[in-house]
Amino acid sequence: MLVVFSIAYLIPVVTSLIYADTTMLLDFLLAMLWTAASGVLMWMLTRHYKGELTIRHGYLLVVVMWTAMPAFGTLPLLLAMPGLSFTDAYFETMSGMTTTGATVLVGLDNLPPAINIWRHELNWLGGLGIIVLAVAVLPLLGIGGRQLFKAETPGPMKDSALTPRIADTARNLWVVYLGITLACIAALKWAGMNWLDAVCHAFAAMGLGGFSTHDASVGYFNSPLIEFILIVFMLLAAMNFASHFLAWRGKSLRVYLRDTEAIAMLSVVLASCVGIALFLWWQGTYADFWTALRHASFNLVSIATDCGFASVDFAQWPIFAPLWMLFLSCIVASSGSTGGGLKMVRTLILFKQAGREFLKLLHPSAVNPMKVGGMVVPNSIVFAVLGFVFLYFMSIVAYTFLLLISGLDFISSFTAVIACINNAGPGLGVVGPATNYSALTDFQTWVCTLAMLTGRLEVFTLLIIFTPVFWRR
Amino acid sequence: MLVVFSIAYLIPVVTSLIYADTTMLLDFLLAMLWTAASGVLMWMLTRHYKGELTIRHGYLLVVVMWTAMPAFGTLPLLLAMPGLSFTDAYFETMSGMTTTGATVLVGLDNLPPAINIWRHELNWLGGLGIIVLAVAVLPLLGIGGRQLFKAETPGPMKDSALTPRIADTARNLWVVYLGITLACIAALKWAGMNWLDAVCHAFAAMGLGGFSTHDASVGYFNSPLIEFILIVFMLLAAMNFASHFLAWRGKSLRVYLRDTEAIAMLSVVLASCVGIALFLWWQGTYADFWTALRHASFNLVSIATDCGFASVDFAQWPIFAPLWMLFLSCIVASSGSTGGGLKMVRTLILFKQAGREFLKLLHPSAVNPMKVGGMVVPNSIVFAVLGFVFLYFMSIVAYTFLLLISGLDFISSFTAVIACINNAGPGLGVVGPATNYSALTDFQTWVCTLAMLTGRLEVFTLLIIFTPVFWRR
Ligand SMILES: [K+]
Ligand SMILES: [K+]
Repeated sequence: MLVVFSIAYLIPVVTSLIYADTTMLLDFLLAMLWTAASGVLMWMLTRHYKGELTIRHGYLLVVVMWTAMPAFGTLPLLLAMPGLSFTDAYFETMSGMTTTGATVLVGLDNLPPAINIWRHELNWLGGLGIIVLAVAVLPLLGIGGRQLFKAETPGPMKDSALTPRIADTARNLWVVYLGITLACIAALKWAGMNWLDAVCHAFAAMGLGGFSTHDASVGYFNSPLIEFILIVFMLLAAMNFASHFLAWRGKSLRVYLRDTEAIAMLSVVLASCVGIALFLWWQGTYADFWTALRHASFNLVSIATDCGFASVDFAQWPIFAPLWMLFLSCIVASSGSTGGGLKMVRTLILFKQAGREFLKLLHPSAVNPMKVGGMVVPNSIVFAVLGFVFLYFMSIVAYTFLLLISGLDFISSFTAVIACINNAGPGLGVVGPATNYSALTDFQTWVCTLAMLTGRLEVFTLLIIFTPVFWRR
Repeated sequence: MLVVFSIAYLIPVVTSLIYADTTMLLDFLLAMLWTAASGVLMWMLTRHYKGELTIRHGYLLVVVMWTAMPAFGTLPLLLAMPGLSFTDAYFETMSGMTTTGATVLVGLDNLPPAINIWRHELNWLGGLGIIVLAVAVLPLLGIGGRQLFKAETPGPMKDSALTPRIADTARNLWVVYLGITLACIAALKWAGMNWLDAVCHAFAAMGLGGFSTHDASVGYFNSPLIEFILIVFMLLAAMNFASHFLAWRGKSLRVYLRDTEAIAMLSVVLASCVGIALFLWWQGTYADFWTALRHASFNLVSIATDCGFASVDFAQWPIFAPLWMLFLSCIVASSGSTGGGLKMVRTLILFKQAGREFLKLLHPSAVNPMKVGGMVVPNSIVFAVLGFVFLYFMSIVAYTFLLLISGLDFISSFTAVIACINNAGPGLGVVGPATNYSALTDFQTWVCTLAMLTGRLEVFTLLIIFTPVFWRR
């Protein structure tokens, strides 16, 4: 428990380092002290439970951490913005930490830099937390994409040079994550952003959070170069960071050729970019194919990887295009990345399972083991994946109906839930890229907050603590 | 092959019997002769293949039958209505035979009785064909709800008194189906309908087709008694006909207590009726709770059972209510009924599988076989169900995107696909209960036609003939 908790302390520490040069030092120091004090208090209360960590405690701990940490994260916002309600502040920090990137704040361009960098830092730390959660913590609980592939893809759990202990794994991933982020900051600065924007957008891109310092998001810069750089780094962030680590350590790009998820992702995204560009050109949304390709590529990659930047108001495009982008946001991101949704590995397993059923209907007695990336996937994992997908869809249905009951229209409800549960960010309708989530009522905001958390904790982790069997005995 | 084909000959035979007293005898005799001649020709062409029926041939045969028969069914419509395009006529007959009940015709009240009764007879025969397909044919191919439960629920395949041969099973089901239909006709006549309306609406209710002789559907009669009678018979038609047969033979209602699907269906429908009535009352759609309950019950049962009658324009209700009804249409109907969608048994298996995964996460080593209705469901069947559900959802996604590309709005596209693939009938938006499918372009009409067929042939049967592996060797 202590190892996991120690991650929470990184937030105020890193914050204080960054905010030494900001104007709102006092607010942040107060918030930091409060958080640190609570952390120490909790640590003292729980220290004598050491050594008793069962699977059950693991689930509770993860869920409590991911609900409590955003609560502490609201402190700077509440202190600095007196008019903000707790509901909205909690939504904003949850959106930051789950790297959803949906915002209820308007007038981003006029926010104090400290607030903006705090929001983006939440994106970045959230991204890191997610990678560690996905690669190191959830597998111990028996959940998540990574654990499925312990024995299969190049992953830290398998490779002998990476010890399987959480702390070591986490440190290695952290270094890779930091390195790519620094490269991204440098590239964005070189492309013409100021330092604040470069740092903020690099944070948002690497965490696939998608917060921006401008209401117009990346459209504010209107720069093809910046868009291209962000596309590259969003795609990197949507790959498995274990692959990045192995590539960096081995000084070789060959590892990516063995990364089935990355290859599938790039193929789907590339085909979709060209397809949507042709569609927009055909529909006359853009008179010029290359303009269509530029806008389609940036916004499609941004939504598909669950980042959520926007360079134009794609809600104005013919409805097929944005809905296809939201559909991709469900399936494209790799396991062990900072993206959300089903993850590409589960999508692949689903399609292969469907193919297997066809084969079985034609040859009822044939034995036909499933292979992904050259290795056999045992049936128990296929079951887990299918169960996951079912709960994921049921969650979408349930949250959508909650929003519908509250009176929101269908397209807004449905796309808001999709955007939140995939941690993508903007939806359509009331919650489109040109507007934001501030129009929602408190109840609707809480539903969206819960949807973000559901997606981020891979559904099972959150739902299991609501099952009767969890509390039995 | 001949046994199966023989069913096709029932259509012109029964038709001629019914139409002896109509004004359009010539048109129908012509159509009948054409169909019979083609049938004989096909029989002569295929007779020397006798004895070679492999699984592969079985699939092809079912698909060819279900695409060719509606084509022949268009003849009376095309002969009697000179302005009708083949696309629309094919949609209408496919809609009839798959018991979808979506119509492209306007001015139903002024159609010649012969045409109306032909449309409703398609509903009725389609319903019978579906029961036979589901209970007797698809299980031989290894597909469908019934085969899943060979060893479990009271079903003809298990019961020793019903021989497992197709012809016998089909005849027994036919008798039960006919008996309940006659009871329905009598009840509707007693409630005040004229003979034509009583026969037509009984046909539409038992087949869960939902065609009506009036543009205003059942709202035309504005009679709570008729609505109540139809509710009862729609629910009966949405239960497994094997249960009805066993109850009738055993002269006992106890068999229904062992029918897990029926119990689950009635519970869900009852709870939803009360819930939606309360919702409509709370929203002020109806000032009086009992009026709300009346309209909620009839329209909800009608959509949930995939019948598709309407008594009011429920598209005007707050959007939550109709969408909940369409959601129920996906899951409520029993296997071996004339309803569509996933079927309740698959829904139950899905939920139990999700529960099993939760248990497994908490107790990784525990063995926990799945039970439905007191009997163990083997893993191979759970896999088949999960594969089915995945393909069903992917079909919805694919057809919806096709409609979106063609320029239809989101709510119309999505609900049209849901309504067609579940063979329910009316959707929302352009295809709502107060309008119909005549506003669609030819391309959109064909997509909807394909969606109906996909749903009716339980997805696998249709899709398998498009897989490369099907044509190999
Ligand atoms: K995001
Ligand atoms: K129907």
